[in-house]
Amino acid sequence: MSGVSAFGFAVEGGEGLARAGRLGLPHGEVLTPAFMPVGTYGAVRGLHPEEVERAGAQIMLGNTYHLHLRPGEDTIRALGGLHRFSTWPGPILTDSGGFQVFSLAGLRTISETGVEFTSHIDGSARTLTPELSMEIQAALGSDVAMAFDHVVPGQASRDLAAEGMERTLRWLDRCKARHGELVERADRRTDGRTDAIDGDGLQQTLWPIVQGGIHDDLRRRSLEGTLARGPWTGIAIGGLSVGEPKPAMRRMLESLAEGLPTDRPRYLMGVGFPEDLLEGIALGMDLFDCVAATRNGRHGSAWTASGKLNIRKASNRIADVPIDSECDCATCRRFSRGYLRHLFVSEEMLGLRLVSLHNVRFLIRLGERAREAIRQGDFARWSRNWLERYRGREET
Amino acid sequence: MSGVSAFGFAVEGGEGLARAGRLGLPHGEVLTPAFMPVGTYGAVRGLHPEEVERAGAQIMLGNTYHLHLRPGEDTIRALGGLHRFSTWPGPILTDSGGFQVFSLAGLRTISETGVEFTSHIDGSARTLTPELSMEIQAALGSDVAMAFDHVVPGQASRDLAAEGMERTLRWLDRCKARHGELVERADRRTDGRTDAIDGDGLQQTLWPIVQGGIHDDLRRRSLEGTLARGPWTGIAIGGLSVGEPKPAMRRMLESLAEGLPTDRPRYLMGVGFPEDLLEGIALGMDLFDCVAATRNGRHGSAWTASGKLNIRKASNRIADVPIDSECDCATCRRFSRGYLRHLFVSEEMLGLRLVSLHNVRFLIRLGERAREAIRQGDFARWSRNWLERYRGREET
Repeated sequence: MSGVSAFGFAVEGGEGLARAGRLGLPHGEVLTPAFMPVGTYGAVRGLHPEEVERAGAQIMLGNTYHLHLRPGEDTIRALGGLHRFSTWPGPILTDSGGFQVFSLAGLRTISETGVEFTSHIDGSARTLTPELSMEIQAALGSDVAMAFDHVVPGQASRDLAAEGMERTLRWLDRCKARHGELVERADRRTDGRTDAIDGDGLQQTLWPIVQGGIHDDLRRRSLEGTLARGPWTGIAIGGLSVGEPKPAMRRMLESLAEGLPTDRPRYLMGVGFPEDLLEGIALGMDLFDCVAATRNGRHGSAWTASGKLNIRKASNRIADVPIDSECDCATCRRFSRGYLRHLFVSEEMLGLRLVSLHNVRFLIRLGERAREAIRQGDFARWSRNWLERYRGREET
Repeated sequence: MSGVSAFGFAVEGGEGLARAGRLGLPHGEVLTPAFMPVGTYGAVRGLHPEEVERAGAQIMLGNTYHLHLRPGEDTIRALGGLHRFSTWPGPILTDSGGFQVFSLAGLRTISETGVEFTSHIDGSARTLTPELSMEIQAALGSDVAMAFDHVVPGQASRDLAAEGMERTLRWLDRCKARHGELVERADRRTDGRTDAIDGDGLQQTLWPIVQGGIHDDLRRRSLEGTLARGPWTGIAIGGLSVGEPKPAMRRMLESLAEGLPTDRPRYLMGVGFPEDLLEGIALGMDLFDCVAATRNGRHGSAWTASGKLNIRKASNRIADVPIDSECDCATCRRFSRGYLRHLFVSEEMLGLRLVSLHNVRFLIRLGERAREAIRQGDFARWSRNWLERYRGREET
């Protein structure tokens, strides 16, 4: 590994709030800004890990909630941890399960201890606590574990947002304590050896999550409380892109800008439509994730330089051009819109896969290009032009 | 291209009735015996053409019936023919649609003209005739077109089998006439140039199909009538593996063995379970196709050297071994049974794809190994051992 130490972050260029960085993780480096494809069950939906790698992904997400229910962390631990199990060779970030259990409206009960919920798979009664989330993520062996947070809906009242934010801070103490124990215990087992990434050792860092709904002061209080609790190697902003009015995200990120340490990576959770990615980058965010790339892909909706394309439309029937003639993805280099439309119309699995792959590459490439523009001091101009064209308002 | 001329066939070794051959086709050579994966809609279900190629497939099948209904041959012609449309670079064999329309029991009416049927897609009334089948296959631009035949069920009476067989012969005359016109017309358009494979030229051969149910004499009569009608570059045996008693296939192939020209490839249609492939090879068959590889794969059923494996079984939960430790497919080289089981249990598309790919490679490799054994004069011994182990009766 070159450049930065494990869990280190180097800022290599900046323009306004936007940054180009380099994040070191036990399984490899991540050049930022970067989109992280979501591998809910240890596979980016519909894609082979080799395809994800060739699409330029540097880090994959895993979902603690889903992997806890299926196949269960004991199974994954028995098969060597999430890296070996999924055969994904690069860094992995696991979420905490918080977002998923709080999304189970009507099926969960929140207390200070944690969240009791009903499994969406078999209806069984389960509990997720800050401690258990840490234990599951330790068993998965991800490079980055996320703190277990209390997420509130985007339209939540000030009181509810404050309650979730304060609880997230209290839970952060518990996450930190348990995570510390788990790392220490693993270190004892390996006699202090730090090369045992896939063995008993646990080379994992814990990132906290800033909450506070759409209230500037709550967000700032959350950030202060978070920073007071430890020298984190990275900080996530959660609870945005969850139904709040569109301009709120910008306002929240602006209100946090001053307080965020500049030498730590910032992860804007759940954000990953092209225009939101660019807005997040402009406001100093470094990492992004979203299932839209693969979910839209499965429905035949593809992103292109000039906006969204519905591959199923009749106008693509004999279109002998790729989804996006400027795209360098494996789908665009080989297949015509006409063939892709045919695969969707005749319900051939290959279609879902090819458009998902295109969308994943599209977001990864957007991150790569933003990084390049930032390093050249050209980000503001470039992203304005990019967005104008994407939104179909290009004058030329 | 080396070795044989287009549509030529060279026998390079033999043992008993089994042969090792080399078939020349406009888009490449096929070393026989060979399993041909089925790309119903211009894609081997769940697989990328690159994966199919890497699995060692030398030729892909396309289904005239399905492609006629979706997307329609006009669409495929507009997009450059089936090769360019599907991006499959090697030879393609298209069936005639006969098998499919005769399978539409209750939805079709047979007359001497052809078959009127109801589309399984939109319920529209359609007709398929020998002439139309030739026209569709010419539009698809496959290397090998199959004659439009009258297929009867495996348990059909002697009278019905005789009727279907005689009609197949009469229809063969019509197929031959129309195919000849189509090739000639294409030649005129290209001024006799034969290099215009993907252009207006039609470098396509027509193969007849021997019918006759499970009646030795009808089969022999069909073969005689077929041979009397032209100097075919290949001959197919149809109407087997369609519900007849298991030993009937062997009896039919034995009764045809003497009459089949030795210098032409023989295609045993619809056959492709491992044990049937070996039996067919032993009885002098060269080419095979079957959807079982991908259909079983989608259900999590995998072939291994020691028999069938149901990947969903609980016993695979923490199995840190590949489907088949002797298999060289991309799935077995990378993924554990435990991970594959997890993909099936959590309904991840990737699972269907990985097991389908294994099964396709399994049959292709079986053909490769049979070819090697035949050339070394070791086929009888090798296939006996192989089958014993596959059926779990190995003594060691």
